Amino acid sequence: MTETLADWVVTIRGSDIAPDVRREGLRTFVNWAGCAVGGASHETVDRALAAVTPFSGKPTSTVLGRHEKLDALHAALLNGITSHVLDYDDTHLKTIIHPAGPVASALLALAEMRPISGYDILTALIVGIEVECRIGNSVYPHHYDRGWHITGTAGVFGAAAAVGKVIGLNAQQMRWAFGLAATQASGLREMFGTMTKSFHPGRAAQNGMFAALLAEADFDSSERAIEAPRGFANVTSEKQDYSEILDDLGTRWESALNSYKPFACGIVIHPTIDGCIQLRDELGEEKIRHIRSVELTAHPLVLELTGKTAPKTGLEGKFSVYHAAAAALLKGDGAPTAFTDEIVRNPEIIALRDRIKATADKTCHEASVDILLTFDDGTTAAKRVERAIGSKEVPLTDAQINHKFTVQSALVVGESVTKALLETSWKLEELKDAAEVARASVPVSTAKTAAAE
Amino acid sequence: MTETLADWVVTIRGSDIAPDVRREGLRTFVNWAGCAVGGASHETVDRALAAVTPFSGKPTSTVLGRHEKLDALHAALLNGITSHVLDYDDTHLKTIIHPAGPVASALLALAEMRPISGYDILTALIVGIEVECRIGNSVYPHHYDRGWHITGTAGVFGAAAAVGKVIGLNAQQMRWAFGLAATQASGLREMFGTMTKSFHPGRAAQNGMFAALLAEADFDSSERAIEAPRGFANVTSEKQDYSEILDDLGTRWESALNSYKPFACGIVIHPTIDGCIQLRDELGEEKIRHIRSVELTAHPLVLELTGKTAPKTGLEGKFSVYHAAAAALLKGDGAPTAFTDEIVRNPEIIALRDRIKATADKTCHEASVDILLTFDDGTTAAKRVERAIGSKEVPLTDAQINHKFTVQSALVVGESVTKALLETSWKLEELKDAAEVARASVPVSTAKTAAAE
Repeated sequence: MTETLADWVVTIRGSDIAPDVRREGLRTFVNWAGCAVGGASHETVDRALAAVTPFSGKPTSTVLGRHEKLDALHAALLNGITSHVLDYDDTHLKTIIHPAGPVASALLALAEMRPISGYDILTALIVGIEVECRIGNSVYPHHYDRGWHITGTAGVFGAAAAVGKVIGLNAQQMRWAFGLAATQASGLREMFGTMTKSFHPGRAAQNGMFAALLAEADFDSSERAIEAPRGFANVTSEKQDYSEILDDLGTRWESALNSYKPFACGIVIHPTIDGCIQLRDELGEEKIRHIRSVELTAHPLVLELTGKTAPKTGLEGKFSVYHAAAAALLKGDGAPTAFTDEIVRNPEIIALRDRIKATADKTCHEASVDILLTFDDGTTAAKRVERAIGSKEVPLTDAQINHKFTVQSALVVGESVTKALLETSWKLEELKDAAEVARASVPVSTAKTAAAE
Repeated sequence: MTETLADWVVTIRGSDIAPDVRREGLRTFVNWAGCAVGGASHETVDRALAAVTPFSGKPTSTVLGRHEKLDALHAALLNGITSHVLDYDDTHLKTIIHPAGPVASALLALAEMRPISGYDILTALIVGIEVECRIGNSVYPHHYDRGWHITGTAGVFGAAAAVGKVIGLNAQQMRWAFGLAATQASGLREMFGTMTKSFHPGRAAQNGMFAALLAEADFDSSERAIEAPRGFANVTSEKQDYSEILDDLGTRWESALNSYKPFACGIVIHPTIDGCIQLRDELGEEKIRHIRSVELTAHPLVLELTGKTAPKTGLEGKFSVYHAAAAALLKGDGAPTAFTDEIVRNPEIIALRDRIKATADKTCHEASVDILLTFDDGTTAAKRVERAIGSKEVPLTDAQINHKFTVQSALVVGESVTKALLETSWKLEELKDAAEVARASVPVSTAKTAAAE
């Protein structure tokens, strides 16, 4: 098992990966870069930086979207944190793994220390995500139900595989890297709701990279760490389905099933935001100003998780379907800009929010919503959303990924840096030196936000 | 649970700890320092250093027994590795935790970055070991049986508590530090037999220190990480006995139950080595030269684990009760010096080894042995060892700890450095700056071994 997987990782070439799979990998990379910059000014990141800076080695590698540089291991940690801190990153829906954070954060940080081409980075990203999601599949759902944050525990294998691939480990070293990854696999779901949640993909990136670097120095380890009786799968799960790891390896791609969140909040409000933005686009801004009332009909879970009627902060706004609907209707927005303290306290938003009623209906699918607008003149407009954008059924278009990227990144590094970074990210495969992406993310001024532009 | 434990850690003062408990803590510290220096020239350490050096921050902290310095987090990792790599360190017999490695390695590395008195280091060491062993007790044996290397998984809590104590975390920060420790708790028993085994106490030291440093920067986390439904105890064990954590906290001391290995090999051969050295001491060297044959009678487990009749390397010698008995009789030695390649290939040792017979006897206790020597003149001498030195029943004396320290340390840093280091270690509580211990461990020449002296 471990042996077969390690052999596959060291032997696969970039040209063995079909163009559509590489394309999805590129979309994953672009989405990740936007999220990493989007989260870069978060308080969680400031605190992590305060703790690690006195211990950082040679500052080779960029904390994306910031001026600080750290050694590659610490930069991997920080970029893993930033990319997840807004809960706005990518999702492998079968396992709820957020795949890019652990893998891409490790690769790009390393690329600033040891030059790696963009083509090779993309190959390693896809291979790392494939390893991560397949190992996740082999133990999901029992592993997750027991309380493991699978993005951390499976992510460390993905980072080890990806870094091991680009630094050219041989098969035995790759088996050792998996051993060193397995023995560092950790992250508890108890941490959800705290800063430590986003620590998990960061630490998985850092630990996975470290596993590969130790193996490179011939630091030896178990060569069957995934399947051994006291190995990863048996110790952390009652389910072990190794066919999930080996079947159709190299032909069926889990990495191509990645999805990207269109809105910066819990997935249960996504249909409402999607429908409200569609209504605004169809009816025009002027018409929206004459809304008398809004009726939402959704599954009871939606109200249970996001039923806050009078949110006071941006964070609380993420748990209010009322605020989210009002912001989507008035501003056409579901990005982090729709969940700032300022927007949540905006009188116009509050006025509309208070005219929204939500009804729980068990017959409504969790991923669907019915929206009915009634205008001052008594006319109405209705919208049913079966599945929101960002779902498996309605994947984000490249243009929507660009929009998501631009809105969140511009808030942190301004519009001109964002534009250049977005272009560089899409050109990844053509870059002789992938580190160009990291360099392109650095804000031009010392200010953290676009306000200074 | 987590709250009570955190409160205890932040409020306890050094003077609350009884003198005999502090004394055992000091013996633990001295034994640890000797083991860390003793393991410092091992190949495992060279490889780890090769991997981490390019990433090290400001080199504030000594790798004990070597010239290299690293940032405090990496030094904690390396000293945790060195102290365990010869399998010669301390043992909390109830849980098989090797307590000092994770805790002392973190503390001393930090003391070279932020001055800490020896008195405070000893207090924090005892508190950290107490936390580590009590958390271990609460989940042992199920946690260990499932496959967790408990020195790693419980050790990270000990390191977090100890470092949190010396840097003065408040109670909330200490709860966060436990959360950050819990979410990094890892280490699989599958790694036994590889370099990655000694990685575990090292990584526990580094991760626990990092947990405390993040908490100091107000990086928040769960405040009930030990007992929460998706917290450490429930996720990693089917047994959770929290009375083991809280009962008699501050009056009954697990840390005072620590034991120290007298011989550098698996515990099952210890009675044989102990008995053979006693016979040599009683009969004199000259008499030993006239041994015709040796009969050992021991529990079958002894032969199962250490039945190699013709070992070829030092490492194989650790799995040969025949070699161990011969070296003990001829050299009076069970230290690492008795398990070098050279000694295992010594013709005189081999000649005696080949005249040793071992018989398995189920009625013999696992911790006992019967030894019968027959001399050339037909006379005999017998020795029954009920319990070997180093066991709970026959603890090592201070003089034996000094002997153990001296023999292994002198091999690495020479006799004069060893003598000074041993003296400094015993004076820990009087040191204004505990870092003196680390500085005293550095070899005077650039050579790694005493050969250069």
